[in-house]
Amino acid sequence: MPIEVPHMKWWGWGVEGSSFEISGKPGLFPYLKRELGVTDEQVTTPPVPLADVRMPERKLNGPFEAALEKVLRADQIRNDRHERLIHAFGKSYRDLWRVRRGEVERAPDLIIYPESEQDVVAVMAAALEHSAVIIPFGGGSNIAGCLEPRDKSGRYIVSLDMGRMDRVLSVDKDSLIARIQPGGWGMRMENQLREHDVTLGHFPDSFLYSTLGGWIATRSAGMQSDVYGKIEDMVVALRMVTPAGTIITRTVPKCSNGIDVKQLCIGSEGILGVITEATMRVHPLPESRKIYGYLFPDFESGAAALKECTRLNIWPVIARLNDPKKTALSFAFKGTKTPFKALLTQVVKWWIHHVKGIDFTKCCMMIVAFEGDSATVERTRLLADGVYCKHGAAGLGTEPGRGFEKAKFDFPHLRDFVMDRNIMADVSETATTWANLLPFYRDTKRSIEQAITDTGSLPWVGCHISHNYHTGASLYFTFGCRQCPGREMEQYLYVKKAAEDAFMRNGGTLSHHHAVGTEHLPWVEADISPAGVRAVRALKDGIDPKNIMNPGKIIPSDQPLADWGLSGDSSKLFSAGK
Amino acid sequence: MPIEVPHMKWWGWGVEGSSFEISGKPGLFPYLKRELGVTDEQVTTPPVPLADVRMPERKLNGPFEAALEKVLRADQIRNDRHERLIHAFGKSYRDLWRVRRGEVERAPDLIIYPESEQDVVAVMAAALEHSAVIIPFGGGSNIAGCLEPRDKSGRYIVSLDMGRMDRVLSVDKDSLIARIQPGGWGMRMENQLREHDVTLGHFPDSFLYSTLGGWIATRSAGMQSDVYGKIEDMVVALRMVTPAGTIITRTVPKCSNGIDVKQLCIGSEGILGVITEATMRVHPLPESRKIYGYLFPDFESGAAALKECTRLNIWPVIARLNDPKKTALSFAFKGTKTPFKALLTQVVKWWIHHVKGIDFTKCCMMIVAFEGDSATVERTRLLADGVYCKHGAAGLGTEPGRGFEKAKFDFPHLRDFVMDRNIMADVSETATTWANLLPFYRDTKRSIEQAITDTGSLPWVGCHISHNYHTGASLYFTFGCRQCPGREMEQYLYVKKAAEDAFMRNGGTLSHHHAVGTEHLPWVEADISPAGVRAVRALKDGIDPKNIMNPGKIIPSDQPLADWGLSGDSSKLFSAGK
Repeated sequence: MPIEVPHMKWWGWGVEGSSFEISGKPGLFPYLKRELGVTDEQVTTPPVPLADVRMPERKLNGPFEAALEKVLRADQIRNDRHERLIHAFGKSYRDLWRVRRGEVERAPDLIIYPESEQDVVAVMAAALEHSAVIIPFGGGSNIAGCLEPRDKSGRYIVSLDMGRMDRVLSVDKDSLIARIQPGGWGMRMENQLREHDVTLGHFPDSFLYSTLGGWIATRSAGMQSDVYGKIEDMVVALRMVTPAGTIITRTVPKCSNGIDVKQLCIGSEGILGVITEATMRVHPLPESRKIYGYLFPDFESGAAALKECTRLNIWPVIARLNDPKKTALSFAFKGTKTPFKALLTQVVKWWIHHVKGIDFTKCCMMIVAFEGDSATVERTRLLADGVYCKHGAAGLGTEPGRGFEKAKFDFPHLRDFVMDRNIMADVSETATTWANLLPFYRDTKRSIEQAITDTGSLPWVGCHISHNYHTGASLYFTFGCRQCPGREMEQYLYVKKAAEDAFMRNGGTLSHHHAVGTEHLPWVEADISPAGVRAVRALKDGIDPKNIMNPGKIIPSDQPLADWGLSGDSSKLFSAGK
Repeated sequence: MPIEVPHMKWWGWGVEGSSFEISGKPGLFPYLKRELGVTDEQVTTPPVPLADVRMPERKLNGPFEAALEKVLRADQIRNDRHERLIHAFGKSYRDLWRVRRGEVERAPDLIIYPESEQDVVAVMAAALEHSAVIIPFGGGSNIAGCLEPRDKSGRYIVSLDMGRMDRVLSVDKDSLIARIQPGGWGMRMENQLREHDVTLGHFPDSFLYSTLGGWIATRSAGMQSDVYGKIEDMVVALRMVTPAGTIITRTVPKCSNGIDVKQLCIGSEGILGVITEATMRVHPLPESRKIYGYLFPDFESGAAALKECTRLNIWPVIARLNDPKKTALSFAFKGTKTPFKALLTQVVKWWIHHVKGIDFTKCCMMIVAFEGDSATVERTRLLADGVYCKHGAAGLGTEPGRGFEKAKFDFPHLRDFVMDRNIMADVSETATTWANLLPFYRDTKRSIEQAITDTGSLPWVGCHISHNYHTGASLYFTFGCRQCPGREMEQYLYVKKAAEDAFMRNGGTLSHHHAVGTEHLPWVEADISPAGVRAVRALKDGIDPKNIMNPGKIIPSDQPLADWGLSGDSSKLFSAGK
């Protein structure tokens, strides 16, 4: 009996039937209206009906399909319209913008569901022999364009859906490691780990719809990375099937065996091969988890508190500081209150303003979570509380934390909601050092705001600091505005470029945890240097000389910006705000 | 005024004049005599006089040297006999065995001292144009054969001595990072960092004579890696000059920008390029440092205590557990005592044996160090003490710690002492998971002992556990025996092969922190898989198609064991113990 692999809906985030819940958030639409100048609460720009999606006929590759039929069962091979559609894109803004309008320029010609590493090896051999391109597909949640078919030579394209390889194979509780298949959604994997009382500790915003293989291939970060590490810190060993054979690394904590081939596989975004198994560091399920909200007088004081905690070795599992804009947005998410709660809120507000002296237009909300044995949680919380209070924060107790826990995986749904209303919304995240953090933040925020203003819309640009390290932290920007009718994609690219240009100008990286894909190709050379690009190309050419693995990703072309969608002097595209 | 670059002596460890101090260790020679069956305390196998060293005439490359003279000063270029000799080898057992007999088959033809990245770029360009091979040289302390000239095509060979690029360029105390040149010996670098009240926290046994560039190129581990990390965890950014241009990565704590090119440079052992600068994570100088000795009833209880500390998040900066053999050796190092101290020792011994019930033939010494602010040090020490005592350990106070601190960088000198007396001595280290640690230890120890017995000598095989991780730890084996006259190298290879074969058979890695070089080439394919080797070769071919960078390292030939020195059925070489 084959495993039924779940998928997200073709036009947006989450499974069919799930959506963003606006009811119970009476302040949200007024906030969007005020901030973005939106007038109509009704849906104005819905996705086209499924029947209206225009998708090219699938290409045929008889010899390849014949070779497959010898090694796979019929139910492992699909080519129907719906399967092709859901495997045609990830969930980037550009992906959704196109698919919602029914524009699918290229979709995979075949979808294959391997059930073992042996199946993957067989598919790879057939693809090499019969000139097929392979795009590995995990949860389909990538927002950097990693999944889009991009083969300049127009070959037959296979989406290799890893969803049936979704098992935790073994758990070694003595060494705290688990051998895990790459293709199960996050919760499916965690549920299996929990049977052994362990957790991976990796919870990206996409957790419900993303997979271990995807996390490793994109160097993902979970919201608890401060303590559990980024995914590259968690991989003890892995297996990756490539056109040059299967790379297998040993299950050892650390080694000195030349260039670390494990690290060549991590972050390779499918251009070298398919991850078929990983041995991951796991942790006992925490005995206790506590989550709190704090309100800081401003972004600067909050950032100073975050840094001080790293210096004092105080490590909450989450410490996410919203800037004033994101704080205001989070307030707009608040639900309807009972009269008593409303009164209580007034009292707390009075206290925050008059006793703590916090200005509500500048204040910044921080969500902080602690995990571990009860004594450690309490001790860490007290130490952190001391640091936060020293920097002027007001403790808001556990209610903001409860709200965060309930909604922590819901944020991507909001994009569908606003896209239904002619609003562009996207995110760009980076990382930098503590010394550079605030000037970087200000310059980037200003740049994105200016770019949106140039396009004639009211800008909304918010940011949060998360993923704290010894050396610095991540800056995660969210931006949105009304779309320019008829110029929506141009407008989006103009704004996105302003964000990424600011990242490069300020010494940041093109992405902290969302990958290169196609969306960040114009900034790769600036990020890793031309010689760095040559190194990656050397790997690609040597491992996959026929370029069958996910072509067009990571390695920029000679004209990356034009390929990306902007050419010539794009600074002159919009001038409303100039 | 050019910087005078210090070097170790040509025939052994340390600078000229330094040597192993046997006086004041009355128990040591009797111990070696008993354990190894050595009879003569006098030097029997000294190194040949310098004048007797046989070294081939240097090759000439007029066009290359002419090109260099245009860009470098005369004092940056050396070709005299002594310079060629000290750059001909590292300090592996094989290196020393040959050079002590005056056998130098191949030495560099030129030694260049770059003073800037620009100098390195110029040397690289000239080498590419005029067919010269470049071997980057740090401190010359490598024990895996990384520095040996190994060019099958017999080209002109340059040793690029990085010793004049020895400065700490800047320290950002806000972000706790420092930009550091690669070529200064450890103490020179630390002294500059200490002017800013920070430390790198990286103290390998070779610290006094090794360099940052070498540490990064070999994925080194310092003795305090449990807290400060292995070198690959400390590199925030780096610059590496390659034949394909200069790879430059950005100063960001973490990123998702495709395959991590920084990780391609780390561990590349000079085969891709020359590291010219690194931005490193640094730490405030610890306010307090405490170091203690504990005696465990046996290796098993000590290992259990080490693991339990990792589970309880108790992290001393050092926790090094000697097995019974290494414990006995450390006792043999003890100095002469005053009558009062001797009496005190008797009392302590009585207590350990009769009250704690510890058997001196099985007991295991652990050295444990704590660093940080005083309160944290005291708190961590108390927690660790609780775990150790639970596992039956007897605390020995601070005296063993003082002994360790005084002698911690001296151990490599012992090899020169025993090599003067016809004794072979070497180390091989690996890493494995906690679940596998003890069976791995026993099988490997037995294998090395058997191999030495086969050669007709009494075996001495000791081990310590150090470098503790969430997932497992390192096993560091030391072995020694009387040499077989006339078959010394064959005997050594036979024993070394037994150690490395055991590492592979038991699921370990070929080295935890000593690199591949030439000495571990026969085990690379088993360690990283044939496809892994292809990936490394792809990088090498793409970045350095003319193979001018340190050829013959990391990537095994088609007959690695024969190239290494053993061919045919080496299991039949010795049969004394069979």
